Parts: sequence; C-alpha cells; structure tokens
Amino acid sequence: MTGSPSTRTVSRRGLLAGGTLAAGGALAGGAVVATVGDGEAADRPPGAQPVPVAAVGGLVEPFHGPRQAGVATEPQAHAAFVAFTLRPGTDRAALGRLLRLLTDDAARLTQGRPALADTEAELGLLPARLTVTFGFGPGLYRAAGLDDRRPASVVDLPSLRIDRLQPAWSGGDLLLQICADDAVTVAHAQRVLVKDSRPFATVRWVQQGFRRGPGVEPAGHTQRNLFGQLDGTANPRPGAPLDTAVWVPDGPAWLRDSTTLVVRRIRMDLETWDLLGRTDRELAVGRRLDTGAPLTGTAEHDEPDFAATGDDGLTVIPDFSHLTRARVTDDRQKILRRPYNYDGVPTPQGHADSGLIFAAYQADITAQFLPIQRRLAERDLLNEWTTPIGSAVFAVPPGCPPDGWIGQQVLG
Amino acid sequence: MTGSPSTRTVSRRGLLAGGTLAAGGALAGGAVVATVGDGEAADRPPGAQPVPVAAVGGLVEPFHGPRQAGVATEPQAHAAFVAFTLRPGTDRAALGRLLRLLTDDAARLTQGRPALADTEAELGLLPARLTVTFGFGPGLYRAAGLDDRRPASVVDLPSLRIDRLQPAWSGGDLLLQICADDAVTVAHAQRVLVKDSRPFATVRWVQQGFRRGPGVEPAGHTQRNLFGQLDGTANPRPGAPLDTAVWVPDGPAWLRDSTTLVVRRIRMDLETWDLLGRTDRELAVGRRLDTGAPLTGTAEHDEPDFAATGDDGLTVIPDFSHLTRARVTDDRQKILRRPYNYDGVPTPQGHADSGLIFAAYQADITAQFLPIQRRLAERDLLNEWTTPIGSAVFAVPPGCPPDGWIGQQVLG
Repeated sequence: MTGSPSTRTVSRRGLLAGGTLAAGGALAGGAVVATVGDGEAADRPPGAQPVPVAAVGGLVEPFHGPRQAGVATEPQAHAAFVAFTLRPGTDRAALGRLLRLLTDDAARLTQGRPALADTEAELGLLPARLTVTFGFGPGLYRAAGLDDRRPASVVDLPSLRIDRLQPAWSGGDLLLQICADDAVTVAHAQRVLVKDSRPFATVRWVQQGFRRGPGVEPAGHTQRNLFGQLDGTANPRPGAPLDTAVWVPDGPAWLRDSTTLVVRRIRMDLETWDLLGRTDRELAVGRRLDTGAPLTGTAEHDEPDFAATGDDGLTVIPDFSHLTRARVTDDRQKILRRPYNYDGVPTPQGHADSGLIFAAYQADITAQFLPIQRRLAERDLLNEWTTPIGSAVFAVPPGCPPDGWIGQQVLG
Repeated sequence: MTGSPSTRTVSRRGLLAGGTLAAGGALAGGAVVATVGDGEAADRPPGAQPVPVAAVGGLVEPFHGPRQAGVATEPQAHAAFVAFTLRPGTDRAALGRLLRLLTDDAARLTQGRPALADTEAELGLLPARLTVTFGFGPGLYRAAGLDDRRPASVVDLPSLRIDRLQPAWSGGDLLLQICADDAVTVAHAQRVLVKDSRPFATVRWVQQGFRRGPGVEPAGHTQRNLFGQLDGTANPRPGAPLDTAVWVPDGPAWLRDSTTLVVRRIRMDLETWDLLGRTDRELAVGRRLDTGAPLTGTAEHDEPDFAATGDDGLTVIPDFSHLTRARVTDDRQKILRRPYNYDGVPTPQGHADSGLIFAAYQADITAQFLPIQRRLAERDLLNEWTTPIGSAVFAVPPGCPPDGWIGQQVLG
C-alpha cells in the first residue's frame, strides 16, 4: 500500500466489523450501525464511522459452499443479468485470473464488505441478500481449450418457429446474475464486477429486471408478471424436488453440484393482450387470473383435471392452454423458473416495452427445458401475445470454499 | 356494463374491501389478504378471491387533499417520471377530460384499488405507498389559452455553460411523477396512466429511477447517490421549514398550495470520478464521504465553518466545493431535493451510464432554484464529473378533494 488516496482501501478490521454487524442487524430485525474503516489513512481519526443499516439492508446470503447461490435462493426483488464476450487472448490462464478477481469481489460484496479497492466503499455495506451467480457460455470453454468439460446440453438452443431473436439480447461467454433486494446494491455490484472484467471481456448485453419488493407480498407467494398472471406455480418445491430438478448429483468435480441456466428475453405484447377479456385470457393460460387455480379447481396448487368437460362437451382446460403445454409432473423433468419483469420506455404512441427475463435453472437443458419449450412452441396459445427476442445458455459451475474460486473445478 | 369479458371490471364492493384491508394490513405490520371481486360476472362464484398483502405492499399514501402527494412524501424506492407532449387540438376542454380521467386512475391506484376497466386488475391491489404527482409544463397553459395562470417562474431555464441538454430528456407539457416502494406497482400505474393519456398526448420521455428500498436503511436517513455521496443533507426539515420552502402560501385558487418542479437529468462520469482519491473527492464535495459531515465537523448536520483554515493557511472547506456553492441558510430560499438514481446499460467497453434524476421542488424557481444553480455553474468543482443532459420545469398545481380533479383550479 502506498497510502495515497487513490489506492487507499477500507481496513480489514473495519470490513469484518461491518459484515458481522450487518448480519446481526438483519437477524434482530432492527436498525443497527455497521462500520467502514479507513484504517490505512494516518490523517483520519482512528476507528470506524457509522453506516446505518435496517433489517432488509443487512440480510446476507451465504456465498461459499458446494453450490452457487442465486439459484435455489428465494428470488430477490432486483436483478441485473450481465453477459460478457471474452476479448481475444483471454485463455485458460487469463480466465483463472479473471474468475479469481470476480470471485473475491462477489465473496466480499455479498457479505456486506466493499470490494478490494472499492472506489465507492460506502455503497458496499448493505448487501440486502445480494447474490452473484456465475454462468459459463459455450465460448468460455472454447477459449480455455476445455470443450470436454462443457456440460453436453450447454449449446445454443435449436431455432424455434416462434423465435425472433436479436443478437443484442443473445449469447454470451460469461454471465453474472446479480440479484439483491435493493436496486442501489445491484447497481454498485454491477459497477465493481464490470470494472474488474474490463481487461478480459467486453459487455455483450445487460438485462435489468424486477419482481415485487421485500415485504410487498408474503414470502414464498407466487408472483404475477406484467400480464397479471401468477408465474411460477409449477416450480419444483424447495428441498428434494428442487434439488432433483436443478443440481447435477454426481460426475467429475467440474460437473457435480453444477446446474444450467437458460435466459430468454420474452417480449409481452400488452397492446393485444389488453384487448382480450378475462375469459379468453383464462382459457389461454388454463388458470384463473385471480387465484391462479386451474380452471377445474379452486386453489393455485390444485391438481388440474385435463379430462373434465363443460356443458359444451369441450375440455374445461383447453389443449392449447399454457398450463396443458407446459405441464410436467416428474420432478426430474421440471425446471426452476426464476423470472424477472422488465419494463422499458414506451413508444411515443404509448405502446409498452414490457416483458419477462425468463431465467430457468435445470440439471440438463436437453432433457428438461427443451421438451417443454418444444411443446410450447407447437401449440401454446400464449405465443399469440409473447415473442422470444433473446436467448442464451450457460453452465453454472459448482460453488467454491473460502479458499477457492468459482470455476476452479473447470479451469484449475 | 355489458357484462362482456372485455369490459368487465372488479366490483365496487370488492374494491372497497380490498382497499380497507390493504391499509389495515399495513398498520398491523403483518400479512393479510385483500380481495378483488368480479361481481359483474354471473358465471363466477359470488364473493371475492384472496390477494395476499404484506406490510410494505399495503401501505397507502393519501391522495386527496389541498396539496398533491409525492412532494413532501418521504421518497419511495422507485420512480417513473413520464413527460407527455399534448397532441394538436388538446385544448382546455380536452385537458379537463384528460385530467379527470388521470385523477380518477391516480385516486384509485394510490389507494390499492384497480383503475376503472383496469385490464390487469390484480396488479392494482398493492399500492406500496404509490403516489402520482401531476406537473404542468408551459405548453399546457398555452394549449389551454390560460397563460395568465402559469406561475411566473415556470419557464424554460436559462441556458447554463455546463449544460449539454438533449431534446430526448428535456421539456414536456404534462408530467406524471409515479413513485412507489415497489417496481411492479410503478410499472402497472405507468401502463394505466399512459394508456388513458393516448387520445390526448404522446409520450415525450420517461426516466426511471431508484433509491434504497424500504427497510434497507433506517427511515429518514440521507441516502447516497452512485458517487457514494450523501445527497440531500441540506434539505429543509419536515414541518414549517419544508412548508415555507415548497408551498405557495396564498394567491388565487390555482396558485395557493401549488409548488414547482425542476427535473434535471445529470450524467455522472464514474470513469473519471473513480480516478480520484478520497481526499480529492472530499475537497470537491466539502464533506466527508463516510459521514457526510462538513470537513470542519464530525456529524452530517454540523454547521460548516467556512472561515476555518488548515496548517497550510487555506480554508478547510474550499471555495469551489459543492457544499460552499450550494449553501443556503434561509428556508425561504431552500429547495427540496427529491432525487432518484438511474443506471442504464454500460457500453461494450464497460463504461457506466449512471447518474441522477435530480428532482427539486420549490415555491418559486426564479427565487430559489436559479440562484443556487447559477452559483454551482460558476464554480462548483463537481461540474468536472457531472453533466446536465436533460431539463424540464413544471408547475405542480394544488391537490383536489374527493369530488374534484387535479388541475380543476387552473382549467375549470
């Protein structure tokens, strides 16, 4: 350390105190103060200065462990999906340097500690359940000369009739999914991670999305998308069903406890959707809009009765409904939807730029995501009002212990 | 009512029950259920279906009253500033129709009730402190033939040396400032209000911004912008000081209890800011970055001592500091800053698109905002790292009673 202002970093002692207090504040549910020190500077008063934290701000998600955070984690309110293109020459060794750096950033920021040489250190003290999840696109394995360690299903998806994919929202060698219950926290983490990636990669696309904020709905409640539909009812339940659907249970170290991520940008045409009446919407979805119950049931999680017919002799739940086409009963074939809404700037004529950042986790894209996707592309009536305009696939490698780094099992 | 699905609306009984329960849930701080009925539909079971609400979701800000909400209101986490250009032919009578419609939407949505014929009624039940604040640009008074009712200071700001204004972020005949503690609520309200404005106006620009979310920091705490600075320390305190600074105390009905709003889009150059050390940053701001205390004090709200000198004989707080240039001590000359951060998509090279939607309320722009702005433009060192790229001014007319509408005193 030179002690010059531009390289001065917050002190380890201050950082640790801050992290600990932040977590404590969360558990207590009250407002406490965490601290950021400035211990390298002889011209500052000794000790740390107070940084106020309330309950949501101090909540911490674990970073280290056999599996990455941000997958089974109860979805936070805000997300930035940041996809990078590796610069020419970013080879296996350079990728190791990049990922050590980004892992260190993520390990600190998620625990309420500023990154090393964090230029806005005070913005790094309120994690609000921050998670940073790393995804590796097919190009990363090629660049590293390690195509044999790419999970077999992590390849560009086959083109589907319904797709209108735009390069600006598609592909990517490396993905960072940054999620937190606070938008300032996401912005700061994004800034730090993008800065540290710049010698190695360029920014390919960024998709920013949102869900209901903390405390707006009861925890665990299925949220609505901007069509007003409950979205995620069919997710595998936490525990064994989710584990079975999402995590690879065995195999070599680079595969075990990994998963895969499909990110699709789905434009939702609110203009034409809003012309539909509730009955037509409910037939398209196969569920009631208010409760999310199947049209043959009364509660969201009721089993649908696909054989039931109405007075007109037709099935109550139509064959073209989203429910029918997306239906999976075997946990091993389910996918974990973890979507975020997006809402851009409307056109001058007032037409919305709204939709869904559809993020789905599954152990195997070919075995789980693709069959559902094909059935939906064939005959899901919702296709009339939705258009996939972006698509990307990533392997999500295993987590790491405190002395490791994300990607170590693949690249190390 | 025809009873056809496309015109079916939620029932008045269901709406009222929903609104009441939402507010009750907020006060109790626990999760309750509100209801949205579907009472016009003979083919639905009677009664309403449950919609879960947690504490933040159910919080309600009053809509009706002598002054508009969203000004003195403790700032919510999310905002959309939506500026419109009136279509040719939108005259005084048409403006009355438009504003009656938008007032009705705002009165319902802010209280947790869907708008009339709300096509996503279920998204209208969680207000999360939603406010909708109406601003009238100079063009609205011209279109209405009522230029004599335009507050004198509501004119385009004089051009300043530091400005690099872009038409895409400037001007506007009508502004809706939509704020809530939940981003889904803001998106839904924006959608409803933009749809209902379409016969009368086109969308000129939309600026979406964020602050720390509810429960992330203790209430009333001064927030940091993306430079890491505490922003808003010098705001007039709630109560008499704020009232004096913000609200017009007398005059004709269209002026009394009105205020004015300046919206400036300030690009913040994080690339060059991040090259500065902490000492240089603190000299530019005149305050400590960690506590926000003046460089001559120890706590955020300490009085600065502009005469104090250091060992080098120079003043401790430099004359070019933001604190020195922005300083106002007389409440009648203060402005109420109510800013939001914005964070767009970085460039491929990883340069941030970050900044501040600087929104300031004051009784008189000429007497309050402009002198500060001129002093800052002359010599504020922060100008090195900030660039105004958008600018708009609006009169914020008085509020309205339950049987009135916003703008009635101006246009009625």
